[in-house]
Amino acid sequence: MEELRVELKNNGQEHLLAFWEELSADQQKQLFGDLRNINYPEVMRYFKTCTESLGNTAEKVDDHLQPIPASVLGSITRTDAETLAEYQQEGLQQVAQSKVAVLLLAGGQGTRLGFSHPKGMYDVGLPSHKTLYQLQAERILKLQQLAKEQTGKDGTIPWYIMTSEATMEPTEEFFIRNSYFGLQAENVILFEQSSLPCLTFDGKIILETPCKVARAPDGNGGLYRALRDSKVLNNIENRGIEYVHVYCVDNILVKMADPVFIGFCIKKGASVGAKVVEKSFPTEPVGVVCKVDGVYQVVEYSEITLHTAELRNPDGRLTFNAGSIANHFFTVDFLKTVVREREGEMVHHVAKKKIPYVSEDGKTIKPAQPNGIKMEKFVFDVFQFCRDSNFAAWEVLREDEFAPLKNGDGAAKDTPTTSRHALFSLHQRYVLKAGGSFVQDNGTPIPHIPSSNSGDANGIKKADVNSRTEDAEEPNVACEISPLLSYSGEGLEALVKGKCFVPPLVLKAANEPGKENVVVKM
Amino acid sequence: MEELRVELKNNGQEHLLAFWEELSADQQKQLFGDLRNINYPEVMRYFKTCTESLGNTAEKVDDHLQPIPASVLGSITRTDAETLAEYQQEGLQQVAQSKVAVLLLAGGQGTRLGFSHPKGMYDVGLPSHKTLYQLQAERILKLQQLAKEQTGKDGTIPWYIMTSEATMEPTEEFFIRNSYFGLQAENVILFEQSSLPCLTFDGKIILETPCKVARAPDGNGGLYRALRDSKVLNNIENRGIEYVHVYCVDNILVKMADPVFIGFCIKKGASVGAKVVEKSFPTEPVGVVCKVDGVYQVVEYSEITLHTAELRNPDGRLTFNAGSIANHFFTVDFLKTVVREREGEMVHHVAKKKIPYVSEDGKTIKPAQPNGIKMEKFVFDVFQFCRDSNFAAWEVLREDEFAPLKNGDGAAKDTPTTSRHALFSLHQRYVLKAGGSFVQDNGTPIPHIPSSNSGDANGIKKADVNSRTEDAEEPNVACEISPLLSYSGEGLEALVKGKCFVPPLVLKAANEPGKENVVVKM
Repeated sequence: MEELRVELKNNGQEHLLAFWEELSADQQKQLFGDLRNINYPEVMRYFKTCTESLGNTAEKVDDHLQPIPASVLGSITRTDAETLAEYQQEGLQQVAQSKVAVLLLAGGQGTRLGFSHPKGMYDVGLPSHKTLYQLQAERILKLQQLAKEQTGKDGTIPWYIMTSEATMEPTEEFFIRNSYFGLQAENVILFEQSSLPCLTFDGKIILETPCKVARAPDGNGGLYRALRDSKVLNNIENRGIEYVHVYCVDNILVKMADPVFIGFCIKKGASVGAKVVEKSFPTEPVGVVCKVDGVYQVVEYSEITLHTAELRNPDGRLTFNAGSIANHFFTVDFLKTVVREREGEMVHHVAKKKIPYVSEDGKTIKPAQPNGIKMEKFVFDVFQFCRDSNFAAWEVLREDEFAPLKNGDGAAKDTPTTSRHALFSLHQRYVLKAGGSFVQDNGTPIPHIPSSNSGDANGIKKADVNSRTEDAEEPNVACEISPLLSYSGEGLEALVKGKCFVPPLVLKAANEPGKENVVVKM
Repeated sequence: MEELRVELKNNGQEHLLAFWEELSADQQKQLFGDLRNINYPEVMRYFKTCTESLGNTAEKVDDHLQPIPASVLGSITRTDAETLAEYQQEGLQQVAQSKVAVLLLAGGQGTRLGFSHPKGMYDVGLPSHKTLYQLQAERILKLQQLAKEQTGKDGTIPWYIMTSEATMEPTEEFFIRNSYFGLQAENVILFEQSSLPCLTFDGKIILETPCKVARAPDGNGGLYRALRDSKVLNNIENRGIEYVHVYCVDNILVKMADPVFIGFCIKKGASVGAKVVEKSFPTEPVGVVCKVDGVYQVVEYSEITLHTAELRNPDGRLTFNAGSIANHFFTVDFLKTVVREREGEMVHHVAKKKIPYVSEDGKTIKPAQPNGIKMEKFVFDVFQFCRDSNFAAWEVLREDEFAPLKNGDGAAKDTPTTSRHALFSLHQRYVLKAGGSFVQDNGTPIPHIPSSNSGDANGIKKADVNSRTEDAEEPNVACEISPLLSYSGEGLEALVKGKCFVPPLVLKAANEPGKENVVVKM
């Protein structure tokens, strides 16, 4: 205890013991445990370096921005089919050799979504009612199968899931309850990201109650510390994994261990790859992958000026248009270097927050204004350790690969409904490409491009023009294809070619439970 | 009466007199008036030609599509500043010589918006509470002033407003009540589009009540018939107008008589010009300007296949990407030819609708399923009369020029809130470009690119990173610049350069009423 007092004093944190004398023995024990767990010199160093960097205002960053060079950028729309097939083959080869792992960033809770469980447990209302976790698990299973079909080899894609203090237990229970959705339990590896104390703007650690320190997860870039502390990196190495695909839990369209992306990065000789989507307009709130003074970085929209955001190339495209979607490729060698040598060089970002704190009379108060900071790292902060020679960016189509779930229904975007519709739309397109078509139950053909019942861009009401009828309740064709049947649209011809379906259409793998839900017309 | 009976019989419409004997004298008079007003052979001809064209399914159109040639397409993002200035000068010259009119398509009611008045009377909730009509009137006034400043000449831009039976009277009253918002009454010319009877799928005219025919406006392409019948075309000619800018009422960002667009079309020698925005993804529900068998046309998204919608040029852009926004340029010579010679060649489109009809016992029934058709023309149907030599398309930026108001708040898009935010965003950008900036009332700088409180594309919550604070209630900076002060951002430097504003910022012209609403910090 005396040791602790000295340490607190040395770091200007004596206020943490303000209530000590009033606490019960149990409470003292709890607070003591909390306080002893903090590495004070480290926290104070983090505070110092990250608040110093706050001076970097938009104008400052702006002058030093460069777009990523064309040499490191590939695009799915500007790559020919043959090359795409080569990438895919390369990716599947690596999967078959068990050299690819996926790593999920799932520390966040569905707070904005109005959901009190881990986001991966969310059911966006697909006909199957599969959760995000189940969709992801089934994509892993299917991709392993595709790799086997191509190579004859039985590869495994281990699934590392970074949780936080709040999500660890419910996530674990959920997977156990659902028998890991058909995966081997030993190939689903949960670990916990760490947290840091919250501080006042003056650098004082905040007490939430008289016997509890206010803490927050250290951002998804806490991954690197967690990989070390949890020994997960050792596990990755011991399995002989060479490539890791990192992604966020809330993107319903995510292509787990996307073989095309992985193949592209490997062929480019990249240690780090970022999947990006084209930023569509200058003020779109999306971070862009670019360089700052020659150093790779994701620059937030709030950090650049309008002038820079509006810069365009001669072809009319935005100069800074590589929109980050938190979907990355890393070689294990690169991760080893970061985790073991360079993690300390990453400076925390400061997020000003309303942090519940204890008042002088021992009550916890929820402030109306931000009263302190959380310190966070971001997973892409490691881009700074790359050079042109080992960085690659792969531009994909937003409508095929990115539909994040952030908000509850009723919000303007990124809701369960927009997620569901994005998946319906993609799967409808899979069916159309495989030669199937859709009709209404009265036999009227449904156009390939769904009408939107909330108006079109023509300034006139034309949704119901020509053979269309008005007042469609659900503008999208409900169409769900089980990942166990098809990973990304492959293998559907035998089932759908030349057939007309009445939505909802649910296509399942042969061995999947649940009643059949296919109405075929004609 | 006997004559009418014969005519009805000859056209298979005797059922329209089914209730005749049961009607009162007044009702008989009403019905007789309704029935005598119909040109039966014409209506039956329309029905025949437009239902025949219904066989043109998506697949059929698809095979014949070509994108508009590069030679007729200009783009604001791929044109240098000098050339843009030339276009603008040309447009202003024509305005100063009173050779430019604007023509508003305002036949629709705000039904989907949940507004029982003409849409132009809608107040989207700007700080000034100006309606769409007032914004448009003030843009005309300002543009006349800008043209005078450039040329010394006092030009007039007459404003033709096509209403419908439902919107004519309230629109007229609204303008009178508001003293035409500063315009000369004789330069605001209201006229009414005509209507057509609604028909069953078998070609029988529908009765709405025992003594009233079901009618519907004939689409915004009814413009051409209305120009003739209302003698508005004569009015246009007599004034010496040479160019007409046609637009829809519901786009809050519309640039009335946009001098850049008009200058571009004139320099291209075009008889017809279409303002377009780049279609952003294949399944976006937007009609595209293209050619069908060499003939210019706007093809609806419901008319093309996914395959065609997904076609891309080698640069990755969509092949069919000229999204129509109902914003057109016509020479008066062209309009004369159409109205006086070619209007009859335009085939109506069929919209299947739920049309209230009278049952055998004389009650009006609202059907649950579409039971008949409305016949409509579209304003862009005249594109078919163009050749490469006299057609031009001008691609502009959606965020600068297009934000339609279609739905009530709560809908996913095109709502009063999205319209208001689009205007705020544009006007904030005007201020930023003129050297102003924005701070919160506590002095914290507001980033140039507003955060969205509904998530970003990073898969992580970063809206509040670095010097940002969380929980912004209104993500956009409220900023409204009166059209009387600035038409499109010009002339603001003297007011804003080097100044820091605390939103909401409302900038008004010197002579404008209302209290000042500018808080300047520093």
